[in-house]
Amino acid sequence: MAEDRIWTAALIVIGDEILSGRTQDRNIAQIALWLNVQGIRLAEVRVVPDVAEAIGGAVNALRAAHDYLFTTGGIGPTHDDITVDAIAAALGVPVIVHPRARAVLEDYYAARGGLTEARLRMARVPEGATLIENRMSGAPGIRIGNVFILAGVPHIAGMMLEALTGTLEGGRPLISRTIGCWVAESEVADLLSETERAHPGCQIGSYPFFREGRVGANFVVRSSDEALLDACAAALARGLAAAGFAPVTDGI
Amino acid sequence: MAEDRIWTAALIVIGDEILSGRTQDRNIAQIALWLNVQGIRLAEVRVVPDVAEAIGGAVNALRAAHDYLFTTGGIGPTHDDITVDAIAAALGVPVIVHPRARAVLEDYYAARGGLTEARLRMARVPEGATLIENRMSGAPGIRIGNVFILAGVPHIAGMMLEALTGTLEGGRPLISRTIGCWVAESEVADLLSETERAHPGCQIGSYPFFREGRVGANFVVRSSDEALLDACAAALARGLAAAGFAPVTDGI
Repeated sequence: MAEDRIWTAALIVIGDEILSGRTQDRNIAQIALWLNVQGIRLAEVRVVPDVAEAIGGAVNALRAAHDYLFTTGGIGPTHDDITVDAIAAALGVPVIVHPRARAVLEDYYAARGGLTEARLRMARVPEGATLIENRMSGAPGIRIGNVFILAGVPHIAGMMLEALTGTLEGGRPLISRTIGCWVAESEVADLLSETERAHPGCQIGSYPFFREGRVGANFVVRSSDEALLDACAAALARGLAAAGFAPVTDGI
Repeated sequence: MAEDRIWTAALIVIGDEILSGRTQDRNIAQIALWLNVQGIRLAEVRVVPDVAEAIGGAVNALRAAHDYLFTTGGIGPTHDDITVDAIAAALGVPVIVHPRARAVLEDYYAARGGLTEARLRMARVPEGATLIENRMSGAPGIRIGNVFILAGVPHIAGMMLEALTGTLEGGRPLISRTIGCWVAESEVADLLSETERAHPGCQIGSYPFFREGRVGANFVVRSSDEALLDACAAALARGLAAAGFAPVTDGI
């Protein structure tokens, strides 16, 4: 069945500011959630510095291993924005000025001091690329082959994802049910593994927490088949209740 | 000079909950900031799913490429906690129950229902490992060779980092100065790259933002040499002022 093919994506987060701890990444979670809705699973993420060889190595490893590869960061107008050059080099193509990107930027900067040499950098793309619209700040994202080059600023990356919504082929979305419980996960470890084993096609993740002075956990059941998912979640809830722990639908 | 050697670390974040977007990672920034203080640079991060081959492949690639390798996640008592087994397999050593970890857990669970089979899983380590103390929840972190296996829950990972503070050899910490400015980064792109070029040993990162209806940017100068850093930051501030933009010390 065609819909059983699993489509995967990888993400490369590019930026010294993430690796130095200066900036808290928000793009991993944002892109993961968006991909889920497209029926594509985020299978691997790498965070690399603003170094051409590190970017290029990761791009070539991951674009071959997955259906789609996304990158965030390094597409602005300053000297530390080297993503386009690094990806073009990795793909073995030259960098050109994209005529439509140039026109978009000319338009955007007409009332903002004009299109300088630095700003024109944001119209540079690997040869053969198409643009991803950005209603926010003029500078577009870039698609070349299965590689999608997005901005690093999370709300601009989000605009670019919006422009891509519904355009990528995917499979059945991975869906989930969460069951919360005021229990130490170690007390129900056997129940969790037995329930997962009895429901092929479902995975159960266990995420413990310590809140209001008590330990608890959220159990997340994931599947791409809704009927299997509901059966597994129901069995887990029954098992928790039978062991004397009240399951909380939709988690705690 | 010995202090000029750059010590690097990599981090593997292990967990389906990060790749599904359910959980916002906090360990990358936490570990990056801690490493900076130890004089060690976080050079690469990978996020991988709860799959033994994915964990093992990343462990063997990164422990060879860096002085230190950290992992977070997957060391709890449930069936989805496979980090120890995956790393032991990657290193080619068996998994054993560590006697001191067992004693610590027996103690911790004495007043909490006793040490069950599931809880005893948290005393399992790759043969040859030593323990990293965890004052929070009993279950220790694990060190084997240059690999440091930490919990996924950020405040528990933080306790384990605290236990490691000052124990790892590093070089001179990377230090930084931030200069903020209410300017579109594209207007000062040339100044940034010229200032960086004139100050070898320093990097300048440009981080734009849109706030209170105005565009601005923070420029972060980084170096492991404080005198070079101060000279570069001062030159950048002078350059911004000369171009008619007021530099804001310590950023906006």
